[in-house]
Amino acid sequence: LTPKALLFDVFGTCVDWRTSIARAAAAAGLPGEAVADAWRARYQPQLETVRSGGREWVVLDVLHREALDGVLDELGLELGEADRSALTLAWHRLDPWPDTVPGLARLKERCIIAPCSNGHIAQSVNLARHAGLPWDAILGAELAHAYKPDPRVYLQSVAALGLEPGEAMMVAAHNADLRAAAECGLRTAFVARPREHGPGQRSDLRAEGEVDVEVADLVALADVV
Amino acid sequence: LTPKALLFDVFGTCVDWRTSIARAAAAAGLPGEAVADAWRARYQPQLETVRSGGREWVVLDVLHREALDGVLDELGLELGEADRSALTLAWHRLDPWPDTVPGLARLKERCIIAPCSNGHIAQSVNLARHAGLPWDAILGAELAHAYKPDPRVYLQSVAALGLEPGEAMMVAAHNADLRAAAECGLRTAFVARPREHGPGQRSDLRAEGEVDVEVADLVALADVV
Repeated sequence: LTPKALLFDVFGTCVDWRTSIARAAAAAGLPGEAVADAWRARYQPQLETVRSGGREWVVLDVLHREALDGVLDELGLELGEADRSALTLAWHRLDPWPDTVPGLARLKERCIIAPCSNGHIAQSVNLARHAGLPWDAILGAELAHAYKPDPRVYLQSVAALGLEPGEAMMVAAHNADLRAAAECGLRTAFVARPREHGPGQRSDLRAEGEVDVEVADLVALADVV
Repeated sequence: LTPKALLFDVFGTCVDWRTSIARAAAAAGLPGEAVADAWRARYQPQLETVRSGGREWVVLDVLHREALDGVLDELGLELGEADRSALTLAWHRLDPWPDTVPGLARLKERCIIAPCSNGHIAQSVNLARHAGLPWDAILGAELAHAYKPDPRVYLQSVAALGLEPGEAMMVAAHNADLRAAAECGLRTAFVARPREHGPGQRSDLRAEGEVDVEVADLVALADVV
């Protein structure tokens, strides 16, 4: 049965953040992949400060900038204030995986498609315009003022579409994201992104636990939903 | 100077609600135009109950259904429960004016485009899919849990895009909407929709007060912004 809506994780699932961030960092004179990996490594611990209630929800630009300052410090790198601000916005300009745009175009013909991302609305809009992601709406963290896997992010995204959780399917390359969505009653699709973290990736290579669908990419998803 | 974002009123400005609702009502065996006009006449008084603080914000489906019950009562018309629910959702399937889709397509090439409507997210998504409105995001009343012309609707829509009010332009066929947007610091574009209320329309035929742009339709807007 085709879901009424497909909700997508974005970083890693729809776009290749590592290659894009490494390129932007290199263009700023920094060691690209080292900066990309160190930057992303601070992401979940940062989100956890919000999820745990230790900090008010803030947009991802704020967290990305704080993390960049930490990364530059950690790696002993120099970068001026204006360049730090500009590089932070590289998270608004990430390139899609090759299957993302054709897959989304086909899926949009029969389902509502929307991001359910930890990115805020401005970041999601700018990213969609850069990458050509044809979303029907921007849902996710900013609606709930919470960060996935907080259940409010999934439930408020589904509710905003006027749907029941079982009428929506969460699409992600990350098992933890799908597990949380399933606990909220959403259906789940695992999309393999085995190079998201580069050639040495060891996690999220396959679906773990029960998912409704496991596919190689978003074009393959359009063949089955 | 081209605005970074264009925010659109939807009912009347982008879609011809009167013709579409009259057709749906007629298909349900009712006097189409009489129902459409009586239904819409209850709209602003309903919103005012929310704006005045007399009632919590609810999605437009709830208000539209209550108003339909009132209209059928007022006009002495019979309609079963299931047909009332179905007809209420006609507000999710309104046809665009002929210039709307080509105008938005051109405007989207250089500006973020989003509704800043009193419609809720589910209604706005369904309407966009029906009418082919290529929004970058769905903004408006549901973000703020308020109804235009409450300033929070404009200001929160602009803030969600990470912009200052002066970087955005409100596009509407209604002077009151533009006046409220201008008071929030947005730029304004008046689009003439002289048949929104049918052949006898007497209000909102021209811009009143200062607007930045006054155009005949959305294709003309694309020529000037």
